[in-house]
Amino acid sequence: MEEKKDEVVFIQREEEVWAGKSWQLLSALRNRCPLIQCITNFVSMDMMANTLLAAGASPAMLHCLQEISDFTPHAGALCVNIGTLTAEWVHSMKAAAALCTQLRKPWVLDPVAVSASEFRMKACLELVGLRPSVIRGNASEIIALSSASMSLTKGVDSSDESTDAVDAAKSLSQTSGAIVAVSGAIDIVTDGKQVIGIHNGVAMMQLITATGCAVTALIAAFVAVNPSNALEATAAALAIFAVAGELGMEKSSGPASLRMHMIDSLHGLDEATILSRVHIHSLS
Amino acid sequence: MEEKKDEVVFIQREEEVWAGKSWQLLSALRNRCPLIQCITNFVSMDMMANTLLAAGASPAMLHCLQEISDFTPHAGALCVNIGTLTAEWVHSMKAAAALCTQLRKPWVLDPVAVSASEFRMKACLELVGLRPSVIRGNASEIIALSSASMSLTKGVDSSDESTDAVDAAKSLSQTSGAIVAVSGAIDIVTDGKQVIGIHNGVAMMQLITATGCAVTALIAAFVAVNPSNALEATAAALAIFAVAGELGMEKSSGPASLRMHMIDSLHGLDEATILSRVHIHSLS
Amino acid sequence: MEEKKDEVVFIQREEEVWAGKSWQLLSALRNRCPLIQCITNFVSMDMMANTLLAAGASPAMLHCLQEISDFTPHAGALCVNIGTLTAEWVHSMKAAAALCTQLRKPWVLDPVAVSASEFRMKACLELVGLRPSVIRGNASEIIALSSASMSLTKGVDSSDESTDAVDAAKSLSQTSGAIVAVSGAIDIVTDGKQVIGIHNGVAMMQLITATGCAVTALIAAFVAVNPSNALEATAAALAIFAVAGELGMEKSSGPASLRMHMIDSLHGLDEATILSRVHIHSLS
Repeated sequence: MEEKKDEVVFIQREEEVWAGKSWQLLSALRNRCPLIQCITNFVSMDMMANTLLAAGASPAMLHCLQEISDFTPHAGALCVNIGTLTAEWVHSMKAAAALCTQLRKPWVLDPVAVSASEFRMKACLELVGLRPSVIRGNASEIIALSSASMSLTKGVDSSDESTDAVDAAKSLSQTSGAIVAVSGAIDIVTDGKQVIGIHNGVAMMQLITATGCAVTALIAAFVAVNPSNALEATAAALAIFAVAGELGMEKSSGPASLRMHMIDSLHGLDEATILSRVHIHSLS
Repeated sequence: MEEKKDEVVFIQREEEVWAGKSWQLLSALRNRCPLIQCITNFVSMDMMANTLLAAGASPAMLHCLQEISDFTPHAGALCVNIGTLTAEWVHSMKAAAALCTQLRKPWVLDPVAVSASEFRMKACLELVGLRPSVIRGNASEIIALSSASMSLTKGVDSSDESTDAVDAAKSLSQTSGAIVAVSGAIDIVTDGKQVIGIHNGVAMMQLITATGCAVTALIAAFVAVNPSNALEATAAALAIFAVAGELGMEKSSGPASLRMHMIDSLHGLDEATILSRVHIHSLS
Repeated sequence: MEEKKDEVVFIQREEEVWAGKSWQLLSALRNRCPLIQCITNFVSMDMMANTLLAAGASPAMLHCLQEISDFTPHAGALCVNIGTLTAEWVHSMKAAAALCTQLRKPWVLDPVAVSASEFRMKACLELVGLRPSVIRGNASEIIALSSASMSLTKGVDSSDESTDAVDAAKSLSQTSGAIVAVSGAIDIVTDGKQVIGIHNGVAMMQLITATGCAVTALIAAFVAVNPSNALEATAAALAIFAVAGELGMEKSSGPASLRMHMIDSLHGLDEATILSRVHIHSLS
């Protein structure tokens, strides 16, 4: 009983620390207004740009291969999203990602529907090889990518089916060197050892297209202002976005009004709300 | 007088049957959450994806030629929309459409602005030749496409000007083998013989970009859960979308709030509302 | 004191004339519903199309090189926006722009992020050379483009840094022959001599992606109905959009609700509101 109470107190204390960090990072983001280059799918561009603007960042949707050497060095971070991929876009994504890694600039990968085709998986694995700072997907994307990454390392025959997104995420993190985030009822973030859980958000967010894409872009913005600790930045970004969703849900009567109120809420978030709402704590 | 009364009773009874079918198909859609591949124009992607999600389907905007053989077989239906066409996209559309027809999987064509250029008309006629399950457009698109389809059959010189969208739709249906739907104040659907009218919707829906595109995608979702009767599925999808527009209009003060409330309403539609609101009956 | 009072009266009278013109042009736009071809970036398409529809114009996002000779002659005006440029799109933009100039049809250029890369600046300068009717950007875009345009004329070495957007706008107007508009807290419009200030709008509009792109498209629609006086049309379009933003702001609690209420307000604008709200007067 005492032990249980101690654990509750410990989690409360841990959550307070995380909530404080989340607010601190959002404040830094608002103050510094980082330029976030997004090479993303066509569906998500509007939602992603509006999410970044509401959070305080400056979005730039720029994907032309000829512009990357001029532009990417000025970005605070890069967000790569393979949602509506073609060969031409893969060239741009790889060039921008490679340049970021070379310049020690953070970049974030969203492996949308990675198992939809061999073409997509191949492109995604090449991107993973260019060392993203963070990879964020849903459970099935992370499991598929983790499994394929392992098979690259261990040979096709030895690839196991990861049935648990936590294990898949840890494994992908170890293989890739990236922080790995899995969105779900509870979002998780891992550096391959530590596993952090974000207990925020509402189910209806899944009925709005590009919310996953948008939170990946938000992660890029948070990592841009906290490049030395991408684990923290990722967890904070996921929590902040999810809290905006919770607040938006209170005013909404469906997915389209949630989309609107969520963005409004993201823009209006204050310290008291974040300190009382953010629920992040270690899962292992 | 008696005859008139009988006709009213007959229409009422017919409308009840249609409303019941519409609810049944929406329920099936919500239960089965069909995967709808959309190869569509850039303007419509956000609206189309959100419409499909609100209705209960799972949208996938995937247009890359290299992915089609892997992905399209997993889709419940395909939606092809030529709004922002280029030669490269036409290749993908034709490959995906041909594969669907080969796999006896339904696919739906939206001939946006088909008469804007020879390039577009040619691409559209090639797509029609790949045997879509349904073609949906506005009156001028269907008239133009019908006329061009006939001229292909009968030679350029013998092409008549169709001045009536109903006749054009019937003719296009007969030529193409597709169910043809024409959006307007009254939506019509025909299999070349029967003509069904959908007496729902509000005029302001035309002031929201991509509502036409979105309802075509919704038709694809309905056909995915009712492939054996595309006429029914098309009429139900048009009515459901239009009822969502009517409900949305009650809360709206302009086209942008209508867009939001329409999507919210689509998500929230219940049986009682559909049974009382859907007005579908035969026109001939 | 008397002089001051006279100045106030003069400005009031000037503003009344401008407000009347603004209403007259919006009415003409609503009556004539001009077809506006947009070759624009992926992020802005939805917002731009909905803005044009709400204002009473008919948008057409059509960028395929093969379609331009068939379609562009039917457009009332063309809007070119380089936000998500690639070499392929530049070909289409140049072909459509050249055709407009040849047909004496107005076209408008939005030099989004023109200084982001050499590729973009080069493309933009080539477009400027095709004689747009209007160029609209923010201060840094207009300063960069003006400076580069001058250096083309006067040689690289003689290029001065323009530190003032007004001077840069006047210079760019003189070099290019276009009306130049600079969006900001006060929007300015110049024909190279006269400078008009639009004292409308709210700061939060900058937190909505593609508002700048949307107002450029609105300028194209206004110039389409008033091609003989692009200066007037541009000032009126900027004021009308900004007034819609002001009205929207009264109902909004963040950038996403502002986006919605702004579009609704644009659709609902009436004469009394425009006459009382539009504040345009000469700055020099």
